[in-house]
Amino acid sequence: MSFTLEDLEARIAARAAVTDGSSYTARLLGDGMGKCAQKLGEEAVETVIAALGSDRAALTAESADLLYHLLVVLRAGGVPLSSVFEELERRTAQSGLEEKASRTESRE
Amino acid sequence: MSFTLEDLEARIAARAAVTDGSSYTARLLGDGMGKCAQKLGEEAVETVIAALGSDRAALTAESADLLYHLLVVLRAGGVPLSSVFEELERRTAQSGLEEKASRTESRE
Amino acid sequence: MSFTLEDLEARIAARAAVTDGSSYTARLLGDGMGKCAQKLGEEAVETVIAALGSDRAALTAESADLLYHLLVVLRAGGVPLSSVFEELERRTAQSGLEEKASRTESRE
Amino acid sequence: MSFTLEDLEARIAARAAVTDGSSYTARLLGDGMGKCAQKLGEEAVETVIAALGSDRAALTAESADLLYHLLVVLRAGGVPLSSVFEELERRTAQSGLEEKASRTESRE
Repeated sequence: MSFTLEDLEARIAARAAVTDGSSYTARLLGDGMGKCAQKLGEEAVETVIAALGSDRAALTAESADLLYHLLVVLRAGGVPLSSVFEELERRTAQSGLEEKASRTESRE
Repeated sequence: MSFTLEDLEARIAARAAVTDGSSYTARLLGDGMGKCAQKLGEEAVETVIAALGSDRAALTAESADLLYHLLVVLRAGGVPLSSVFEELERRTAQSGLEEKASRTESRE
Repeated sequence: MSFTLEDLEARIAARAAVTDGSSYTARLLGDGMGKCAQKLGEEAVETVIAALGSDRAALTAESADLLYHLLVVLRAGGVPLSSVFEELERRTAQSGLEEKASRTESRE
Repeated sequence: MSFTLEDLEARIAARAAVTDGSSYTARLLGDGMGKCAQKLGEEAVETVIAALGSDRAALTAESADLLYHLLVVLRAGGVPLSSVFEELERRTAQSGLEEKASRTESRE
């Protein structure tokens, strides 16, 4: 129903195919990974700065920028978002098992 | 069915409530926004470096770290992920309209 | 004879006093620490990216940008460069002593 | 008389030659540019965060860390500090000329 990161990934894929110069996404991807990674780093700096302020709207806007530029980098690097989610799911499952093990231990 | 960022957000909320010192998430949030933002920045640096290499597994793992630490920062800042997604959806809709407008123009 | 970081610090102090809008340094300082720190972070990202390439000219240019923006941040934060150099000198002396101690130990 | 960045550069060159594993500098350089650049990026994040706080001692300490790790990156990249200073001197001279030109213009 609601917007997902997969929607954004699909959107970026669609924009990447625009060849008339009207798409910021297509131009950024055309500039290569160096430029894509630079933008990701810059947006991370802005997110850090917004996080240290007390303006939630700024943190929201910068986080949106960061997610967008991360997906651009993943596309430039040939990594599907699903691979990142599989990694996150794997870690979550593992940390759940560790937590369970630790609870069992602490009962002894 | 598959893993979503909302699942990770819920997981972080659950871990944040662990008070016995066994949860990395709880300890990080306990250290305050300065530390959470520092970790976000460091993971962004590692993602940038992985992006410039040619190792997709490294980019996948660093992107997972970055997403996790972004969600920790959002929690520390009191911003629900849904607000960030609303912002992304709003921008996507707007850029779709601009694209449509630009196509209409270029037809003239 | 040659250029020093103190020369750059004095230059930034002189430029900071320019009030007719012609000085980038004065405008940046006028925008406040948030903007100065953001520029420092962005230049660091560019230095990291240049470092990972094999273009020495790019690394040289980005390092110059980084040093300049670090000195702007120090001025915005009211920290004289001499305080940073005292800290570096103190650490160097300490690590020299540790090295000497470690050499003495290893002789025993 | 006082400590200079050239002193730190010479110190790093001396430490780089330590092969018994006792030198942090030598180990960092041994890990390659990826690790050196990562540390530079991390220290920049910490400097940005310290700059946004109001603790001058923290900003002083983080700036010292940043300068040290920048010099490590320059060494790893084969760029002498003197090249960076030449670049800074060139820019300073140029901006001085532009300033003079602008003053001359504004007199007209």
